[in-house]
Amino acid sequence: MNITGKQFIGGQRLAQSEVTFHSVDAATGNALPYTFFEATKVEVQQAVDAAAAAFSHYRQTGIEERAVFLETIAEELDLLNDDFIQVVMQESGLPEARIRGERQRTSNQMRLFAKVLRRGDFLGARIDTALPERQPLPRPDIRQYRIGLGPVAVFGASNFPLAFSVAGGDTASALAAGCPVVVKAHPGHPATSELAAGVIVRAIRRCNLHEGLFGMLFGNMIGADLVKAPGIKAVAFTGSLQAGRALCELAAQRPEPIPVFAEMSSINPVILLPGALQQRSGLIAAGLAASATLGSGQFCTKPGLVIGFKGEAFDHFCGQLAEAFGEKAPAVMLNRDILKNYDDGIDRLLRLPGVKRLNGGTLLENRAAPAVFLADSSLLCDQSHPLESEVFGPATVLVAVSDRQELMELLPRLHGHLTASLFAEQNELGDCLPLIEALETRVGRIIFNDYPTGVEVCDAMVHGGPYPATSDSRTTSVGSLAIDRFLRPVCYQGYPDDLLPAPLKNANPQGLLRLINGEFTNAAI
Amino acid sequence: MNITGKQFIGGQRLAQSEVTFHSVDAATGNALPYTFFEATKVEVQQAVDAAAAAFSHYRQTGIEERAVFLETIAEELDLLNDDFIQVVMQESGLPEARIRGERQRTSNQMRLFAKVLRRGDFLGARIDTALPERQPLPRPDIRQYRIGLGPVAVFGASNFPLAFSVAGGDTASALAAGCPVVVKAHPGHPATSELAAGVIVRAIRRCNLHEGLFGMLFGNMIGADLVKAPGIKAVAFTGSLQAGRALCELAAQRPEPIPVFAEMSSINPVILLPGALQQRSGLIAAGLAASATLGSGQFCTKPGLVIGFKGEAFDHFCGQLAEAFGEKAPAVMLNRDILKNYDDGIDRLLRLPGVKRLNGGTLLENRAAPAVFLADSSLLCDQSHPLESEVFGPATVLVAVSDRQELMELLPRLHGHLTASLFAEQNELGDCLPLIEALETRVGRIIFNDYPTGVEVCDAMVHGGPYPATSDSRTTSVGSLAIDRFLRPVCYQGYPDDLLPAPLKNANPQGLLRLINGEFTNAAI
Repeated sequence: MNITGKQFIGGQRLAQSEVTFHSVDAATGNALPYTFFEATKVEVQQAVDAAAAAFSHYRQTGIEERAVFLETIAEELDLLNDDFIQVVMQESGLPEARIRGERQRTSNQMRLFAKVLRRGDFLGARIDTALPERQPLPRPDIRQYRIGLGPVAVFGASNFPLAFSVAGGDTASALAAGCPVVVKAHPGHPATSELAAGVIVRAIRRCNLHEGLFGMLFGNMIGADLVKAPGIKAVAFTGSLQAGRALCELAAQRPEPIPVFAEMSSINPVILLPGALQQRSGLIAAGLAASATLGSGQFCTKPGLVIGFKGEAFDHFCGQLAEAFGEKAPAVMLNRDILKNYDDGIDRLLRLPGVKRLNGGTLLENRAAPAVFLADSSLLCDQSHPLESEVFGPATVLVAVSDRQELMELLPRLHGHLTASLFAEQNELGDCLPLIEALETRVGRIIFNDYPTGVEVCDAMVHGGPYPATSDSRTTSVGSLAIDRFLRPVCYQGYPDDLLPAPLKNANPQGLLRLINGEFTNAAI
Repeated sequence: MNITGKQFIGGQRLAQSEVTFHSVDAATGNALPYTFFEATKVEVQQAVDAAAAAFSHYRQTGIEERAVFLETIAEELDLLNDDFIQVVMQESGLPEARIRGERQRTSNQMRLFAKVLRRGDFLGARIDTALPERQPLPRPDIRQYRIGLGPVAVFGASNFPLAFSVAGGDTASALAAGCPVVVKAHPGHPATSELAAGVIVRAIRRCNLHEGLFGMLFGNMIGADLVKAPGIKAVAFTGSLQAGRALCELAAQRPEPIPVFAEMSSINPVILLPGALQQRSGLIAAGLAASATLGSGQFCTKPGLVIGFKGEAFDHFCGQLAEAFGEKAPAVMLNRDILKNYDDGIDRLLRLPGVKRLNGGTLLENRAAPAVFLADSSLLCDQSHPLESEVFGPATVLVAVSDRQELMELLPRLHGHLTASLFAEQNELGDCLPLIEALETRVGRIIFNDYPTGVEVCDAMVHGGPYPATSDSRTTSVGSLAIDRFLRPVCYQGYPDDLLPAPLKNANPQGLLRLINGEFTNAAI
């Protein structure tokens, strides 16, 4: 593999710094034979300047040109060979099938946004035609659509080295919106990042686009400089609450504040109604154990809290879940920091009064062992939210409530989370309605009789939720609606048709569905 | 008039405080016979608690119920009698015709949002149906729509005592989105605010809605407490850059940060191409003078900067504009602080090297005199943006650039503004395109051959723009898109039809246009 470890800036590979770091084998903790240069402040600025220069060109590209570009990235992703898969496996410790699946998901995300571009509804075209005779004042012709915000800084996630990283969902949606991207490569998978960045650079060249359209910087210390660079107009981040919150505060303090779309923390509560436990306790225990330990529990949607009703059925279920967890093998984690944090998180849980371990959780040969805990429900009312601090890894906490009333009192006190799941039988649907009403205000996705892991990339997906799940509950980072984060409306008043952008011209040359004088229509004017 | 000066909290009128203040006659500066109680911290909390309690009810109301509520507010607004008009005139110093027009605009805004509710596109319904046979994994059924964020704090503006205040656009869009509202009454028009609040309270009673749905608090010191109250989930603000920025920082520092939609500062540049000046210099001068002095220049869209090309034609235009300004009578300002700020702003301009006064600007009998200045174009390149600090009132600055190149270098350096206007002849359209491309990234609305004042309330309007015009360029505070600020998407995975909210049910009982499996359709499933 040809890995140089240099920055990607305006189509060039540069390395000014003398500070370097190594890529690490997730399974062994040993250095891999790839060296990376820590980007300098000057390089951060250069990458942002190149992106700003590219913006003035790229935002003028047509829908079709952009769609083809995204499809070209998808093609190039699919062309990556087995050596690439090996590098990702080494750096992430994730198994081959997962990497291949994630690569497919990543190229499919690009293709989804190509579809979104061609559908054109992301443009939000709205036209109010002139009413010259209106009294007391005539109405001018006003036409609105949405344009890209400008260069976006993308902070790749550790846990999806492909689908939420260099060429992942944030990059796909920003590029689709017409925004150049500068990625901060996650230090946990720099070689993977370099190879994925190469994919985007090749696609830019094949499509004859501006070389500044994509940049990538290596390093641990560059995040603040990137967010503070005046040319950056939005930030997309997936990672810890602490880091996400710090970036939000930096962005808010800029002379020109910018939005930060940070996906940060979630424990994804699961609620088990009595009928469901009665009917299929074993099945649910097996499903939950599989969901909570999938990918060593390193998913933002891992079910980390399971709430049931006190009694024999729930006691029995706890035993089944503990047993199911016990059958799961300890697994390599993404990196040593994450492994250590998992261990610390388990210690933190065990130190809480009212928490006991039902199974697992000890470190075995540098692998994380799945762990199940039982906690007192009073801890969910504690103002410091001790059970809602995410333990990233294969751990889940069980909580028994006395009755429906206690549950209904608990739910509004929950932090914001990405998802909630509800298990119920057909005859319990009536009981579900008040629970759903309460959960709607706390999460972005409510799942019925299914597990939260497995986030479908589609139009209807919401991968978001109230703080601290994300920094902006009005958005999603997965699915086609993610493009909305990087768009802003602009309107044109009294324009001659010749000067209007294509989506707003009378003839409707792109055949868009537009809101014209209050009605949706594909018609020309 | 029965003005008690007490807070509006959960349908009651309360006044705990011993601190009071008076309403002031804008024209004379004398106290009016209305006393208001400064809200206490406890009252702020009570109003927010009442709003939070109302949210759980109000968000369950159907589209039709909410639409009728907004129409009832509109009806009650239209029923306000001449005494009301007199109070608004006294407090604002604005003329009767303007107040009557603004009242009509305010009730029409309510009716517009009733229409938006019935149209239903604000719900953003998206459905991806299950694909049980898909390989390698089946796709679950996923359905998304948008719900209200929760209680919204509205900070009324001084310059639109009706349309951007208690029952104004922010309140209308928040109520339409399903969010209760707590208003901080603007201290410049507290009696007006009390009467407008009465309108909303009557509408709540007529519609049998929860009394906590609307609250209003008087006082100068309560803003921070309101923004920090945990029950508040978003803030809408129209006012100064300094105050808006302070609220944004407060909101970002909350344990749970919330979005602030602040509309703050704009000088609305106007660009005059040579052909336009040649053809209709006098007409443009008359139109600009009228626009800049309308309502004593107290509009966020007042044209405060006019850029032309050096030469005889522009010199002539400067003379015409100065003359036209000279014919405008000095006018009462909204309040004494605003009058003083106007005076200070003029002093600030005059102290800049390279600025000279062409006409007007001296205080006459406590009225603001319209003023025109000519400034050196180098001041637009100055990093401190000395010409872009808004002088709120009837003042405009003229700037001559040497050529198109200088103009194209200037435009990208401009701060964000709400609008830009472009005056050109038919044969100059080609020259306009690069200007429009540059202006698009700096403003929310670009106007062709017209003046920026007069903000149409319609679907296509964008009253927003990059910072410091607003705190979030992705939104608008005027027009139907303003509802988007207060909505967040939620999705339901694998739900039985019975448990789905009406907009997402198979039968499509509301006949909504929905995005189903990537296609827009009104059809049922």
